[in-house]
Amino acid sequence: MDHFYNAPDDLVAEILEAEAYLGPVRLSSAASGMRLMLRADWDKDRHGNDQVAVLSGGGSGHEPAHAGFVGEGMLTGAIAGNLFASPSVEAVLSGIREVCGQAGCLLIVKNYTGDRLNFGLAAERARGEGLAVEMVIVADDIALEDAPQPRGIAGTVAVHKVAGYHAAQGESLAEVARLASEAAGQMASLGMALRGASMPGQAPDERSPELGLGIHNEAGAQRVSPATAREAMSAVLTPLLATMGERHDAQTPMVALLNNLGGCATQEMNVLAQALLAELGTERLALLVGPAPLMTSLDMHGFSVTLMAHSESLAAALNAPTAAPGWPGVRRVRTPQRFEPAAVRQASMLTDAAPQEAATAHALRRILDALSEAREALDELDARSGDGDAGSSMASGAAAIGRALEAGRLDTRNSAALMNGIGELLARDMGGSSGVLLSIFATAAGAALGRGKPWGEALGAAVEGMQHYGGARPGDRTMIDALVPAIEALKAGQGLGDAAAAARQGADATARLKRAAAGRSAYVPESALDGVTDPGAEAVALAFAALCHGDD
Amino acid sequence: MDHFYNAPDDLVAEILEAEAYLGPVRLSSAASGMRLMLRADWDKDRHGNDQVAVLSGGGSGHEPAHAGFVGEGMLTGAIAGNLFASPSVEAVLSGIREVCGQAGCLLIVKNYTGDRLNFGLAAERARGEGLAVEMVIVADDIALEDAPQPRGIAGTVAVHKVAGYHAAQGESLAEVARLASEAAGQMASLGMALRGASMPGQAPDERSPELGLGIHNEAGAQRVSPATAREAMSAVLTPLLATMGERHDAQTPMVALLNNLGGCATQEMNVLAQALLAELGTERLALLVGPAPLMTSLDMHGFSVTLMAHSESLAAALNAPTAAPGWPGVRRVRTPQRFEPAAVRQASMLTDAAPQEAATAHALRRILDALSEAREALDELDARSGDGDAGSSMASGAAAIGRALEAGRLDTRNSAALMNGIGELLARDMGGSSGVLLSIFATAAGAALGRGKPWGEALGAAVEGMQHYGGARPGDRTMIDALVPAIEALKAGQGLGDAAAAARQGADATARLKRAAAGRSAYVPESALDGVTDPGAEAVALAFAALCHGDD
Repeated sequence: MDHFYNAPDDLVAEILEAEAYLGPVRLSSAASGMRLMLRADWDKDRHGNDQVAVLSGGGSGHEPAHAGFVGEGMLTGAIAGNLFASPSVEAVLSGIREVCGQAGCLLIVKNYTGDRLNFGLAAERARGEGLAVEMVIVADDIALEDAPQPRGIAGTVAVHKVAGYHAAQGESLAEVARLASEAAGQMASLGMALRGASMPGQAPDERSPELGLGIHNEAGAQRVSPATAREAMSAVLTPLLATMGERHDAQTPMVALLNNLGGCATQEMNVLAQALLAELGTERLALLVGPAPLMTSLDMHGFSVTLMAHSESLAAALNAPTAAPGWPGVRRVRTPQRFEPAAVRQASMLTDAAPQEAATAHALRRILDALSEAREALDELDARSGDGDAGSSMASGAAAIGRALEAGRLDTRNSAALMNGIGELLARDMGGSSGVLLSIFATAAGAALGRGKPWGEALGAAVEGMQHYGGARPGDRTMIDALVPAIEALKAGQGLGDAAAAARQGADATARLKRAAAGRSAYVPESALDGVTDPGAEAVALAFAALCHGDD
Repeated sequence: MDHFYNAPDDLVAEILEAEAYLGPVRLSSAASGMRLMLRADWDKDRHGNDQVAVLSGGGSGHEPAHAGFVGEGMLTGAIAGNLFASPSVEAVLSGIREVCGQAGCLLIVKNYTGDRLNFGLAAERARGEGLAVEMVIVADDIALEDAPQPRGIAGTVAVHKVAGYHAAQGESLAEVARLASEAAGQMASLGMALRGASMPGQAPDERSPELGLGIHNEAGAQRVSPATAREAMSAVLTPLLATMGERHDAQTPMVALLNNLGGCATQEMNVLAQALLAELGTERLALLVGPAPLMTSLDMHGFSVTLMAHSESLAAALNAPTAAPGWPGVRRVRTPQRFEPAAVRQASMLTDAAPQEAATAHALRRILDALSEAREALDELDARSGDGDAGSSMASGAAAIGRALEAGRLDTRNSAALMNGIGELLARDMGGSSGVLLSIFATAAGAALGRGKPWGEALGAAVEGMQHYGGARPGDRTMIDALVPAIEALKAGQGLGDAAAAARQGADATARLKRAAAGRSAYVPESALDGVTDPGAEAVALAFAALCHGDD
């Protein structure tokens, strides 16, 4: 399966049914053979006498166009054909009959022969029945220079919005048609694609990147080979700006519509938006619709840009709220606001000539030495359950703390400052996730000590933070298994000797835990862990033993 | 170029800058090395004292997550890392400092080790500075059974919405954290992809379809080979529903979130939505967020579904308005409404035993005979400028009208009914775009005759409709070139003889038109057209001559 489709013949019906599950619309029966989606709240004998009904449609495969634009303030209904194929005259005429009241009905049609003729004949038949119907043809594509019949592409969606807005204001059919036609006449669109659309059930359409292609996989006007998104955007904007320049003052502010032709990732559309915004700037570009899929061509990997001259009237129409689910809204273009974040380093706990207390410094030195000496033994334990660097990693953290201690940059007189300083060093110089985890431990302890908590409680808060952020629980074969019992002993008022004994017991018990649920050894088969002490827990036991040794 | 990107290293900066061009946000300077995007209207010393600030973030490549969810009612800010890589502790801490006031700050973090640790250490440091910070970890992925560390995926976006809503209501940090945590704990998500994500600048990741994959291209839990979108959706829903069934009553209504992982076309997402809605139905599913890209993995061609138990509180939070541009809103699930369009055939102008007038019937017969006799000559003309079927096509239209005339089904006494009947026959039986075009001509004439217009004016309206819908203008080498002068003669009160002479003159003049701007001969080189009369114009001249001949 190349795409998330069911049977190709069911595609259009399924697309429309999804909309009917999610919005206040009504859908013609499958048996009718037609695919009409109409506003469920629209009563032609009530609304239709006060407001012009606005219909659009055409071949399917362009979603959200057109069914996604049905809703108050935009289309009254959409008439869908098969993939890339115009709906029948009968279907269009049925749609007109369903929605058209005394205020009349406007048809908005993309400039493709099939749509013009089928919608056109339906309009003439409806007129023969006494209904007031007008048709506006959108021909916004500028790909084919001097083309007698420019195609209608993504700009059509903006015409839907303009017509829907004025219809909702209660303006007359002639006026809604005039304003829609005026909007259609002032826009210019151009697309580029790296790959064409894949028709469901058919092989993907491999083609070179092309500029100026249609929305039915028609060949592009020109093969291109942009090296970057910026170049691609420039290639599209250059002819568009030339066209706009012929029609308007070069200083006229514009509205742009940035359309995903279907296959661009969100990230690509944002990169293209950045290129568009950077090239036009806030002086030329007042409003942007998108980036969003508006008029797609199935999964075509490409985009199109539509430019329109900005006016208060156009802005009001685009800005007005609508219930149509596919309309992405319009956003004002502004100069990006930048700020300078306050430098984090200012808060460093490490200072030159920090206050010193010999006993604390000695105790810390004993722990650091013990961990440095255990480097090889810990690496060996780790090699059997992880990636073999637990000892080296601990030793590098110990070395960083040792250097700061020697240099007198750690405040050994103030326990909160000491732990915060250690936390800072571990995060910065030890590296890896174990460095961050130990830094969390030290920092959380420092914060609690700073709030006046005694050591036992402060370390208790620290090991809780470590569990919360690291995700390990007792029994998961991590340093938690040694830390928790040792800290429990301290919190219960026991001495360092008891804490060290508890840490040792906890560390030894990890050799009997066959399943690691956190940390790197979570990815190691159970059998390999049997009888191997967790190196983190072992390091904790060694550290407590070293502290204790000094107490003798 | 495979994708619309510039230099891979610039990708994240460009994505964020696009957002900063389009929304009320402020972005940390490039020089800071951090990527913070914060609400520009948020003043921590004003809003931050009344409302909890809500921050999220993580690796980039998941857009619109997280920068697209910054806005009133959702996130106060987002902290972006490099592609698929956690932001630094310093960046997170800077973000907290920028937004956190007396009401405190909630961090929402996806359950990936890097994010947990970096956000966690930043939270601890901020606490050390006296700031009130809480962290909620989202672990909604159910792909890995009994996983000790389920990943955080698309459900995170719903947690942003829930937290943002309650924060905007002015609830306390503890309460916002509790509600966000409760929402996170009740959701289950699962994804499937047909193709993995392509890292910018690297070859695409070709892999088999997989169920239960992460959002950083981690391998899926299981290879799958769904044959249809419906099967794919079932494979995702089955384990999700089992998980929900363990937690809730089987009848509990649910809220679903349907996420495009990046590479699905709009059409595929609608087909998947239809499959989801059809499988769960309106009884099980109350609300749907999407289908939309919410938590993408670059261009990964896949989707994910998140299920949540419905509650009034959740619905209120999801329904509340937000300024965040990436939030697609939530829609109520309803039973699709169907209707039966009024049958179009009821209005047929063709009736058995239609009123007859001999003179009109004879005149019509003369025209039909003339066109049938000219079949080969017209085909020959067409072979030199088009596809050689103009004569056959005219003859088949003439034959259809002839049969109806013989059968007495055309009303030759009422000119409006006659022209409408002819229009109906041409659309139905002549086929092709010329059939529709001639049908438009006849139908428009019928409508005008029905309004009491004389023949000249009625035909004038008809030729105008033909030009409007067909797009051809005089001089474009079409039947218009003979029709317009003939009808002008009639409108000026001249007789049929003058009209026929004008038609002949107009048809002959097409042989000197080198450029065809409409119709099929628009695609033929100019030189090939020299000296060739347009077959449509020739047919018109022959028809007028036949009419005229009877007048003699």
